[in-house]
Amino acid sequence: MNLEQLAAFCKQKGIIFNNCEIYGGNRGFFDLGPLGVEIVKNIKDSWWKTHVQQREDVVGIDGPIISNPKVWKASGHTDNFADILVEDTVTNERYRADHLLEDALDINCDGKTAQQMNELIKINKLKSPNGNPLGVPKAFNLMFSTNVGPVASEESVAYLRPETAQLIFAAYKDVVDSSRVKLPFGIAQIGKAFRNEISPRNFIFRCREFEQMELEYFCHPDKVNQCDLLTDEIKNYEIQIWSSDAQLANEDHKVMKLWDAHEQGIIKTQWHVYWLYFEHSWLRSIGLSNLRMRARQHLPDEKSHYALDTWDIEYRYGFGWKELEGLANRTDYDLKAHIAQSKKKLDIFDEETKQKVIPHVVVEPSIGVSRALLAVLTEAYQESAERGNIILKLDRKLVPIQVAVFPLVNKVHDKAREVYDLIKDQFIVQYDKSGSVGKRYARSDETGVPICVTVDFEDGVTLRDRDTAQQYRVALDELSYVLFQYYAGKDLKDLAKKIEKND
Amino acid sequence: MNLEQLAAFCKQKGIIFNNCEIYGGNRGFFDLGPLGVEIVKNIKDSWWKTHVQQREDVVGIDGPIISNPKVWKASGHTDNFADILVEDTVTNERYRADHLLEDALDINCDGKTAQQMNELIKINKLKSPNGNPLGVPKAFNLMFSTNVGPVASEESVAYLRPETAQLIFAAYKDVVDSSRVKLPFGIAQIGKAFRNEISPRNFIFRCREFEQMELEYFCHPDKVNQCDLLTDEIKNYEIQIWSSDAQLANEDHKVMKLWDAHEQGIIKTQWHVYWLYFEHSWLRSIGLSNLRMRARQHLPDEKSHYALDTWDIEYRYGFGWKELEGLANRTDYDLKAHIAQSKKKLDIFDEETKQKVIPHVVVEPSIGVSRALLAVLTEAYQESAERGNIILKLDRKLVPIQVAVFPLVNKVHDKAREVYDLIKDQFIVQYDKSGSVGKRYARSDETGVPICVTVDFEDGVTLRDRDTAQQYRVALDELSYVLFQYYAGKDLKDLAKKIEKND
Repeated sequence: MNLEQLAAFCKQKGIIFNNCEIYGGNRGFFDLGPLGVEIVKNIKDSWWKTHVQQREDVVGIDGPIISNPKVWKASGHTDNFADILVEDTVTNERYRADHLLEDALDINCDGKTAQQMNELIKINKLKSPNGNPLGVPKAFNLMFSTNVGPVASEESVAYLRPETAQLIFAAYKDVVDSSRVKLPFGIAQIGKAFRNEISPRNFIFRCREFEQMELEYFCHPDKVNQCDLLTDEIKNYEIQIWSSDAQLANEDHKVMKLWDAHEQGIIKTQWHVYWLYFEHSWLRSIGLSNLRMRARQHLPDEKSHYALDTWDIEYRYGFGWKELEGLANRTDYDLKAHIAQSKKKLDIFDEETKQKVIPHVVVEPSIGVSRALLAVLTEAYQESAERGNIILKLDRKLVPIQVAVFPLVNKVHDKAREVYDLIKDQFIVQYDKSGSVGKRYARSDETGVPICVTVDFEDGVTLRDRDTAQQYRVALDELSYVLFQYYAGKDLKDLAKKIEKND
Repeated sequence: MNLEQLAAFCKQKGIIFNNCEIYGGNRGFFDLGPLGVEIVKNIKDSWWKTHVQQREDVVGIDGPIISNPKVWKASGHTDNFADILVEDTVTNERYRADHLLEDALDINCDGKTAQQMNELIKINKLKSPNGNPLGVPKAFNLMFSTNVGPVASEESVAYLRPETAQLIFAAYKDVVDSSRVKLPFGIAQIGKAFRNEISPRNFIFRCREFEQMELEYFCHPDKVNQCDLLTDEIKNYEIQIWSSDAQLANEDHKVMKLWDAHEQGIIKTQWHVYWLYFEHSWLRSIGLSNLRMRARQHLPDEKSHYALDTWDIEYRYGFGWKELEGLANRTDYDLKAHIAQSKKKLDIFDEETKQKVIPHVVVEPSIGVSRALLAVLTEAYQESAERGNIILKLDRKLVPIQVAVFPLVNKVHDKAREVYDLIKDQFIVQYDKSGSVGKRYARSDETGVPICVTVDFEDGVTLRDRDTAQQYRVALDELSYVLFQYYAGKDLKDLAKKIEKND
């Protein structure tokens, strides 16, 4: 399966559409269709439940997309969040200078300035893709700008947030003042962000409008390497690791226990051990496989200016290993920047040490929703030669439709509606009566329905398992119980067997 | 309670913050704090469950905020979505011309053009609030604009959506092609929208960035007054009605059965009967009271250009009766506008009549999330003289914290943690050990926790009801069951009694 096939499948099934196809599209922007919007809701709900609602040490917020522009001055985005572009002097088309140079000279431009790239262009007499002379490379800010209020002027310029993280820092004082949080604690947010990417690409992997799930985890500055949440389970958790360290230089990646990696100096802090465990586990819980994920440490020249150390969890997409999630140690860089810009006090009183401190963000787990969706779909999409159709093997937590109810023939329609009514308030149920049962099974496979319930003339109903195509007979008064147990994580086979025994 | 008190309470408790207070604020933009984000999630989840997931005739989508600008050309927003502003010729400050004229002359400016207002300003020699001469009134588009791509030019202008509705029309063809929907059916969306309001006001009632929950309900053009979903329960449903019709001209509003209002010609279509019932019921289900809601028909000069007939559900906020939700009959105005602009076919084959038709949007239920939140908070906020604290009587479906667990004294901390662990995966639970139990009850009242569980030296635990302050004794192995039943809608008193009987 390549990206084009996946995109076509997503369009056909109502998972993802190119935005505004009736108007010739809208590059870098997508619609979630009827199935996609449910899958994404389930991904976000699972993240929120595990990262916020079930944790005593994390609270959530939701800040606006348009914020006071001083936020972006403080964070450095106004001055530095830029790609370096170069113009074709004849057509006035603009290109990313690093992409042109990397393609033409097979070099790595990470970290090069506009001036350095200008020299490389001159020395190598580089032309534009149209064969025309190139102008002087210039920084191009990636934030979308707009004007707030009735007068469009310098003073009214505002930006669409390029990340959700800064909204957490901007609201930090209000959260601390209202929420009785104690160090260490996290503040989480899910929301849209916008980047005026010159080359949106790889389907929904790099978009201009996207959604982030971010968490800033604040610690006492003296405890940036002291995590009280570590257990044996976490220490012995195994993960594929790629690191810049010499020991691993010649390997693609290596399976290691997290604590071993820490003791060997590969994973620097206990907090990175903890959050790599937590995030990797969560990603597995939504259906991503161990083998397609690896933790990779950023190389020194790759790290953001604010980061002391960053690990990515990479996923092996159809187009290679790419960042799925970042876990940066942002230190006290952001809070200090906002203190300097706002002249406000952003310290917190730590009851344990009786000190007023500016906490450190020891880890910021940050993941793009559409990157998670793309990974989930990559994993779930399976062509079945045997059945002659695609099976979307989504984890049961993420499925847009939990149960499909079929009348075997039209004559049992009323009875099947009763079955539908019986379970429709507890589960997300689809009723489907058109076409042969085989066709309906195939359609359900393609939309990822884990369990189909077929109603016939006999007592009881037939349950059919999406993944195995196995069928089980269940009494009507056991149906709710079986479905409930299945969605609580039990195996359908065990449940159905059990019932046979009880009969 | 006035708006200032409510806003102060919301800030103090972490429900709503002014955005960017550390930078002097950001007018018309708000943060949801730790409690607010959970209440809003619960409102949206309830809307989505009842309007999409539990309905066989509605599917959801999620379109982008930045769309192809042709969408706004087709919808009329580029040309007509404007306020008329007039400038103080000395200070260059801009004001809404209608507000100045209405305040000075006590007239109604609805529907007046810029030219008409200009004449009124000249005839009445109207000055600005600073006493300076006024310029010529001009239309000011309320859409925020930005540029997409590397070149800022006329061609790259795009807008932040001023409503979510048009994204539904823009994706209509993709939804129809992928989802096997049959007339009548609805497409729903929850998402942010942006309007560059000159005078954001009334706390979160009128913001520049806000969230909408919208549903377009499409019908066969020959069946715009034929609804097969009506039942006796719906027909006999009573609602406070204010209508422009003569019969009601001298009354504030009148309680009527929906079907009576329809038969008397007040509610024109069966679809408005149905959706007024559905929306009003849903609003009641999230805790809004009958007496604070009324249905009001738009006056002829109030209706939008696209609407054949519009009803609002108004809520009696602290500052008067205001629109909470709109239910417009948009007819085939939008689909036809997009057909004309895109030159694409947007008709659908209706299996029943075997006709290809352009469906009508007979009702568009559209509600702002922050208006729903403000109504919910207005309803829930209650000062208790008896207890000496505020009680936030949120409906149990909306509470940010479902259960609070307290150790009576420090010595039973371990035992209380066991109770916490017992229920933390099934419910949203807060553990609180600081201060006297009375203080902890008061804090729980203020954050709306319906049930506090106090652990002492005895077997069993004490449950305390937020609304009545009544206490009940429950055995530990009954706790999950009682909480589960309570959150399924049962009365705590009945549940606790029952248990006493079983003992």
